[in-house]
Amino acid sequence: MSQTLSGRMTGMEKTLIRRINDLADPSCINLGLGELRFPTPKAVLDHVRENMGAWRLGYSPNEGFPELLELIAARAGGGTSPGQVCVTVGAEEALQAALMVLVDAGDEVLVPDPGFPAYPSLVRLAGGVPKPYPLLPENGFGLRADALLSLVNEKTRAVIVNSPNNPTGAVHSPGELRELARGLRSHPLTVISDEVYRDIVFGEPAASLSGFFDRLVTVDSLSKSHSMSGWRVGWCVAPPDIAKAVRTFHQLAVMCVPSLSQYAAIHALRGTAAEELRSNLEELRRRRDLAVSCVERFAGFPCAAPAGTFYLFVDISAVLPKFGTSLDAARKLLAEEKVVTIPGSAFGRVGERYLRISFAPEPGALEEGIRRMGRFFRA
Amino acid sequence: MSQTLSGRMTGMEKTLIRRINDLADPSCINLGLGELRFPTPKAVLDHVRENMGAWRLGYSPNEGFPELLELIAARAGGGTSPGQVCVTVGAEEALQAALMVLVDAGDEVLVPDPGFPAYPSLVRLAGGVPKPYPLLPENGFGLRADALLSLVNEKTRAVIVNSPNNPTGAVHSPGELRELARGLRSHPLTVISDEVYRDIVFGEPAASLSGFFDRLVTVDSLSKSHSMSGWRVGWCVAPPDIAKAVRTFHQLAVMCVPSLSQYAAIHALRGTAAEELRSNLEELRRRRDLAVSCVERFAGFPCAAPAGTFYLFVDISAVLPKFGTSLDAARKLLAEEKVVTIPGSAFGRVGERYLRISFAPEPGALEEGIRRMGRFFRA
Repeated sequence: MSQTLSGRMTGMEKTLIRRINDLADPSCINLGLGELRFPTPKAVLDHVRENMGAWRLGYSPNEGFPELLELIAARAGGGTSPGQVCVTVGAEEALQAALMVLVDAGDEVLVPDPGFPAYPSLVRLAGGVPKPYPLLPENGFGLRADALLSLVNEKTRAVIVNSPNNPTGAVHSPGELRELARGLRSHPLTVISDEVYRDIVFGEPAASLSGFFDRLVTVDSLSKSHSMSGWRVGWCVAPPDIAKAVRTFHQLAVMCVPSLSQYAAIHALRGTAAEELRSNLEELRRRRDLAVSCVERFAGFPCAAPAGTFYLFVDISAVLPKFGTSLDAARKLLAEEKVVTIPGSAFGRVGERYLRISFAPEPGALEEGIRRMGRFFRA
Repeated sequence: MSQTLSGRMTGMEKTLIRRINDLADPSCINLGLGELRFPTPKAVLDHVRENMGAWRLGYSPNEGFPELLELIAARAGGGTSPGQVCVTVGAEEALQAALMVLVDAGDEVLVPDPGFPAYPSLVRLAGGVPKPYPLLPENGFGLRADALLSLVNEKTRAVIVNSPNNPTGAVHSPGELRELARGLRSHPLTVISDEVYRDIVFGEPAASLSGFFDRLVTVDSLSKSHSMSGWRVGWCVAPPDIAKAVRTFHQLAVMCVPSLSQYAAIHALRGTAAEELRSNLEELRRRRDLAVSCVERFAGFPCAAPAGTFYLFVDISAVLPKFGTSLDAARKLLAEEKVVTIPGSAFGRVGERYLRISFAPEPGALEEGIRRMGRFFRA
């Protein structure tokens, strides 16, 4: 008896980031995955190890332990109440939940291009239509409010903003964000601000839309800020009606985040690892500068140091005609030199002439990976 | 500017189980929540504590660590391959994923009545229409294949089977399950078998549909079998095409299950806690027998010992006219005697004349809770 899957899964695949990573074997140098390589902060790990025998490890309240909700509300600032928070399985579940409670079939959602590949997929899962708004290299990949606003119409249900931006590392300017908020105010839509990279900046703090726009869902996590990706603790902060719907969705979707992860998150958000995180960020800055200089030296591609994130978005247009697409180039680089990079097309149409490389790996692997890239592209 | 939520959230609420629990304060005797009260098995807890410093705690492969997939495939038996498995955030996410990848708008899904309240909600979230099939008290709440089969039509996309059944504790007979499988074979639909209570049985092992039906998605977890609800490790085992779609959905929905929870699950599924789990089950049997005798003694309700789960589904029809509905009765019992129970209506229409009480709490609380119930209902 034949049986098809649901329509929403038609053409749906794991993100290209994961599919490229799935092709890699452990002997590869992985400049692909969007993950820091620092261990869980020692203060957090010690706290969990020392106390886990005494904690109750059953279900938590669905939306998260009250103390964690309070710490997240305090981090969000601006009089946020714990009732506006839901703790989720990483930022990923927060994005899914926000889109599922906001988007109906046929609704449009504006997503950044280049941008995190899960955005358009999650919009489609919710029945919506992703509409890319361009972040152009000639503007340093920075958001231009007028360009985005020109795409808003009566079908637009939500806009996803991501600053610092994955994959470009661009931090959007406070002026453009304010102008965006002003321009969107007359539209009945919600802004979803994905701020998971907000602590990974090398200069000025990234501006937030908080305070500029009322119908704002802020998504954040400990994965990047605290190098705790494998603990899967994220959250969203939303207006009360959306927060209530997100909590309902969350209960039905996963029940709650693991208790142990939440206890770890409480300790992390108390600031107990501040010194270690500062030192990690300094190390990351050194790796960024190393990566930029290696890309220029070994591969000869022009490459600007990003203001945030741990990615270089490298313009390979000069050599692209030899390969066809960025995906072809990334695949061949992986096959011939065993270096994982992410083709820019994974992030949208604007990304096509680029490769994303992560500078999270340790310096030796980073330098060797880029050296191989250079050898490959100059061959 | 007014803004509504998506249509799928209309009328959607947390399950009544959770809403009743949310009304309780810590001074209440909680016979409501569907959770064992045994601690995480000592062997698992010690293993995690001793090794967590040495483990990499970043992202796992989306679908789960290979060793965990192998252990789950071995547990499923019947030549299951690890490629058919996806590790999920508890059985809850496995159910959500299965329904999201199978159900289109307007598709019907048959769900047990009485049955776990999340089933109909998850069907609706996926755009489908839940159709209850009755499990009648005159049959000991056991599944009757012919009654279920008479409800199948061309719109039926899936059937959810749950044995042992929450809330009744009934274990469905192998004969009826075989007849069901035979009757469903000519229909292009998938059976979702929720087997989370399969290890919580007091007599014969519960029969499974495995081996009788090809388009079968089996859902299981460590929450009940290993008293590890707060670790949030569940999984589904499915035919390859469904498993692939579930993995894709799972990546987009939550990325992966926390690494630490997966390491714990690996140790648990190696059987390291077998002795402790056996002793827990014996203790649970004593609590079951205590609860049954207390219900008869203090409240005077007829009450049969269930074959599985840790619930008594208590027929309160004799006193119901005094209260109106089972929800009214449960609310008033909570307000006056500070005892949490779950109104039978939470589980469907057939459940209306019942209250579900959990016998997982320790004997002192269990006895006192039922004593108060008796005082309340006999007043």
